Amino acid sequence: MTSPNLSLNLATVRRQYGFADAVEECLRQGISAISPWRDQVQAVGLAEAARIVHSNGLRVTGLCRGGMFTAGDAAERQAAIDDNRRALDEAAELGADCLVYVVGGLPTGSRDLAAARSIVAEGLAAILPHARANGVPMALEPLHPMYAADRSCLTTLSSALDLCAELGAGAGVAIDAYHVWWDPDLEAQIARAGREGRILAHHICDWLVPTTDLLLDRGMMGDGVIDLPKIRRWIEAAGFSGPQEVEIFSANTWWQRPGPEVIATCIDRFHSVC
Amino acid sequence: MTSPNLSLNLATVRRQYGFADAVEECLRQGISAISPWRDQVQAVGLAEAARIVHSNGLRVTGLCRGGMFTAGDAAERQAAIDDNRRALDEAAELGADCLVYVVGGLPTGSRDLAAARSIVAEGLAAILPHARANGVPMALEPLHPMYAADRSCLTTLSSALDLCAELGAGAGVAIDAYHVWWDPDLEAQIARAGREGRILAHHICDWLVPTTDLLLDRGMMGDGVIDLPKIRRWIEAAGFSGPQEVEIFSANTWWQRPGPEVIATCIDRFHSVC
Repeated sequence: MTSPNLSLNLATVRRQYGFADAVEECLRQGISAISPWRDQVQAVGLAEAARIVHSNGLRVTGLCRGGMFTAGDAAERQAAIDDNRRALDEAAELGADCLVYVVGGLPTGSRDLAAARSIVAEGLAAILPHARANGVPMALEPLHPMYAADRSCLTTLSSALDLCAELGAGAGVAIDAYHVWWDPDLEAQIARAGREGRILAHHICDWLVPTTDLLLDRGMMGDGVIDLPKIRRWIEAAGFSGPQEVEIFSANTWWQRPGPEVIATCIDRFHSVC
Repeated sequence: MTSPNLSLNLATVRRQYGFADAVEECLRQGISAISPWRDQVQAVGLAEAARIVHSNGLRVTGLCRGGMFTAGDAAERQAAIDDNRRALDEAAELGADCLVYVVGGLPTGSRDLAAARSIVAEGLAAILPHARANGVPMALEPLHPMYAADRSCLTTLSSALDLCAELGAGAGVAIDAYHVWWDPDLEAQIARAGREGRILAHHICDWLVPTTDLLLDRGMMGDGVIDLPKIRRWIEAAGFSGPQEVEIFSANTWWQRPGPEVIATCIDRFHSVC
């Protein structure tokens, strides 16, 4: 069985596999789309990662991640911008559909969310020409509001689309069900994202009840409460037909299981739940 | 020193004090406004609690809490509505400014947030006549989106105000900085809440970085990242001049400290931070 509409974000098996072994197991189980993290690519080397991708005809639904613009001082912000240019180069070499952006939270010592959002907008504007030149769309990922302080001052799909409108061509959004499922405005904003041509990626996992850790207790599809088929229908109705990308950070459950079992479970749940 | 603009939500000292002792310590330290929880009132008895309130001239900025409408079946939902009528009676006897509503999350086994929101709207409409007859405003409290599954399908101030508009007179909102600080639309929605005459309560505490527990790791004002003075200015500019109510659930820090120290710290931080 192949699963052409399923992509595996390699963070899901980061404790089990390096890049090459993760790809090998994906291919063995019929998955031909992946989304790696930069540290995973760097561990094997960019050239070798690109060779593995291209020689196997893999689709790369995204490279994770750019962003983290809200460093403390001007020098650190410039370093972040420079690093984001390198991330775009890596995404281009991998032929990724997009570079996924987690934009950063409050600068250290700051309580000013509006200022953080301005820093993010400036950082994105600074690298946009490089993204356009490389042909790599920038996928802004609004994160769940519980990450507003330390990971992403961009907390809603609505505000991400507003930012895309400011930036213009080359910017879009990654819609991750885990981050946005709670939003009463979600259906309308997904439709808007489609109208404005902004949907670049569709991530899935599940919200567990209870959730015991803010970062590392994400659930396998079907084990939580997110209505994933409904969100998929909204996204498809908005015109996005790319793979759904499974991304599960799970320190105590899935990162503890054997890699083949995790991938097999992702496939099974994808077909039975999503 | 007295603190006429400070109210203590008695959950903040629920491990240290019963109702009567909490009030005694508040008065000793110059706090004359409180917000008790129903279990705290019931433990001392409603009549005795009301006697303590009225004989001391206390302001009760709210009774916590009504809501939890999204029970599984029709009988349970009716039981929730009946219980909410009793809560309104208790709030009236205490002379509370409002009854605070935490509306409930997804019904057990359901993934349908829209349906949950409809159940909530129906439950609130069912008790609204009783609230109006008792003269107790219903304060809908949008909770942080991390509680969408298990506590409150009402996740934004905007959607709470939409619901108030459907309900009409007798409904309003409790704005808790902890629940809404991340919202990019917060300033606009607070202004709207003021224009529409809906602000009934203003709760404060702080968002800690890191936050180690989704429910019981709220911070003392000044220990986290919320810009409380900015939110206060927005709320005051919107026309609400009632006390700020400190509500801190803190299993491992403040619930472990001596009650007089906790209350003294609330007062100190209120005057120096908020």
